[in-house]
Amino acid sequence: MIAKNYLEMLQRKSVIREMAEASAKAAAEIGAENVFDYTLGNPSVPAPPKFTEIMVELLTKKDPVALHGYSPSLGIREVKEAVAQSLNKRFGMSYKGTHIFMTNGAAGALAHALRCVVEKGDEVITFAPFFPEYVPYVTGAGGVLKVVPADTNSFQINFDELEKMLNPKVMAILINTPNNPSGMVYATETIKKLAEILKQKERKYGHDIYIISDEPYREIIFAGVDSPYISRYYDKTLSCYSYSKSLSLPGERIGYVAVNPACRDAETMVAMCGQISRGIGHNCPASIIQLAVSGMLYDTSDLSVYEANKNILYKELTRLGFSCVEPGGTFYIFPRALEEDAVAFCKKAVKYHLYLVPGNSFGVEGYFRMSYCISTEKVKRSIQAFEQLVKEYH
Amino acid sequence: MIAKNYLEMLQRKSVIREMAEASAKAAAEIGAENVFDYTLGNPSVPAPPKFTEIMVELLTKKDPVALHGYSPSLGIREVKEAVAQSLNKRFGMSYKGTHIFMTNGAAGALAHALRCVVEKGDEVITFAPFFPEYVPYVTGAGGVLKVVPADTNSFQINFDELEKMLNPKVMAILINTPNNPSGMVYATETIKKLAEILKQKERKYGHDIYIISDEPYREIIFAGVDSPYISRYYDKTLSCYSYSKSLSLPGERIGYVAVNPACRDAETMVAMCGQISRGIGHNCPASIIQLAVSGMLYDTSDLSVYEANKNILYKELTRLGFSCVEPGGTFYIFPRALEEDAVAFCKKAVKYHLYLVPGNSFGVEGYFRMSYCISTEKVKRSIQAFEQLVKEYH
Repeated sequence: MIAKNYLEMLQRKSVIREMAEASAKAAAEIGAENVFDYTLGNPSVPAPPKFTEIMVELLTKKDPVALHGYSPSLGIREVKEAVAQSLNKRFGMSYKGTHIFMTNGAAGALAHALRCVVEKGDEVITFAPFFPEYVPYVTGAGGVLKVVPADTNSFQINFDELEKMLNPKVMAILINTPNNPSGMVYATETIKKLAEILKQKERKYGHDIYIISDEPYREIIFAGVDSPYISRYYDKTLSCYSYSKSLSLPGERIGYVAVNPACRDAETMVAMCGQISRGIGHNCPASIIQLAVSGMLYDTSDLSVYEANKNILYKELTRLGFSCVEPGGTFYIFPRALEEDAVAFCKKAVKYHLYLVPGNSFGVEGYFRMSYCISTEKVKRSIQAFEQLVKEYH
Repeated sequence: MIAKNYLEMLQRKSVIREMAEASAKAAAEIGAENVFDYTLGNPSVPAPPKFTEIMVELLTKKDPVALHGYSPSLGIREVKEAVAQSLNKRFGMSYKGTHIFMTNGAAGALAHALRCVVEKGDEVITFAPFFPEYVPYVTGAGGVLKVVPADTNSFQINFDELEKMLNPKVMAILINTPNNPSGMVYATETIKKLAEILKQKERKYGHDIYIISDEPYREIIFAGVDSPYISRYYDKTLSCYSYSKSLSLPGERIGYVAVNPACRDAETMVAMCGQISRGIGHNCPASIIQLAVSGMLYDTSDLSVYEANKNILYKELTRLGFSCVEPGGTFYIFPRALEEDAVAFCKKAVKYHLYLVPGNSFGVEGYFRMSYCISTEKVKRSIQAFEQLVKEYH
């Protein structure tokens, strides 16, 4: 009698995963250098050498019983305080260590943040295009995910549609900026307007509405782009961060929830995260990884390759007639497909060894996502393949 | 509107945690050397030096992009295969890598194993004395935990009471041997009898019943003790393991679920664990920690101090008139308190700087738990404190 709901989830295969598997299969057959794999968001630049240095120092200098001992259930105190300080310095906030809950990356952060403010049947609103894992994250927390259709002209927020969908059951707004898959960064004006609307609705409904801000791409911002720190513009914000992308450590599962000190019961919410952990078996990220990242809170990997790739792709795809909004950050771009059926389009692209992901699973039909965390040399070579693909449509 | 259920959990403080905090406070006041802290199960012996060596080698020799990249969602393939092989060699099993799901320690393993076989309202039976975290683990998975009263003569299974409590709603039996808090190891005869009863009930009820075997203390077995590998005696077993105790790595959060290949849909169950992860934000233990432990699957820390401590405590406590069952493994002992109210007893013990945990939270009144993962020298010095405590009762 195995649990039916998970068995059913298993039968609905992830489109991203399927395309990635097809790409890996092709790489095995014709050589990885001949395959343009734009499917996965796995950072392509190494972690900073400083990470290795700190890890080796911890391993060789620190008492192993203390080093590998249990982390306190909310995270290691000194690490939490260092994270708070770094956010205060960089974004003018006033976090204390007690506002920080250390997690296994952004997935762990979202699992806790959602359970903090969502109870069974509550609604959570997000904006298309959105990361498909939001469905299991919100459902797993007992909530119902509602998706505001995309404003495909700008990939900012479609406020008219948002206003229609807001209702007293909405307890949280889940936003992701810089955005996977569009690469778009919400402007300060967008955030201010969102905050204003939510404050109005709070008064009207007589209950708090939280912003859960999913920020793994926060450090990947391109030149001249306005990238506001969400929590500065809306008090009831739970910021969910991961070092996966900024430090190229996706496998080491390290991130946090930062609860805005102005939230009612902010420190209590962090303590609640410790209780949430007990039920879901999370129980802290690895101690040594917590300690290591706390020594490099102002560092990033060399992220410049992503902007170089974006510049090439945006220019060349536009030249080839693709309609797309220029990304302000991340390593994603989300152009319009050359036919209405993006799945059919992505299948045609495979002929030219281009592996793209149809936008349907991100809540927008007729678009496709490219993850350009690959070498710039390969991005350049892929343009010819796009040229051939475009010819098919003329 | 923060989630009420977690807020309520927060108000029910853990007794273990409270005693540990009192002990830490006393240590700060009168010096740690004067406090006999028997509260926490934090290993007191270092991880093997080999762990440090492997970690440093991985960090300095391996390509960082590959090393720190995303783990596949079920765990790193080579790691899973190595774990399967080690279990096959040691316990005569026939696992493949596809029967192993890598987790953040035993807590992560139990969270997945329970969700695999328990749906909302299903019953899970465990045996007193039991680890108090089983309550949030089972409740979090949607199940209802039912506790079979202890057989305090042996701390083996009270089969008469088990038979009374079995009913068609029971989907899983959650066992923990070697046991926290009793230190008792289930004998082969106990397991065989349990397996026989469950097979009978499966036929009667017309559905599978799983054993979820929580085994973090599996490698801490004392001389001459029979310690069967549970899954060998019952096909429908999900073994939940952690390296926290055997390798003294509790903070690094590494363990696994091993599904017996004879389970119906064994590999599907492992794949389901990947789906369960999506909803709870688990998403794999740290890649580097997976790789490191896979190089030392036949190693343990020097665990001999635990047996040395057990020998002293069992002999001395018995001499002082305490009634207790001799532990067969772990670093716990669970003697009878000198008065019916174990909480009052543990409070009196504090006068002599003895920090003990009342048995109530483990489901047995009138007993107390001691975690003797402390230095043998300190165990010896604590005997005098016990002598003074005993005098109060004469």
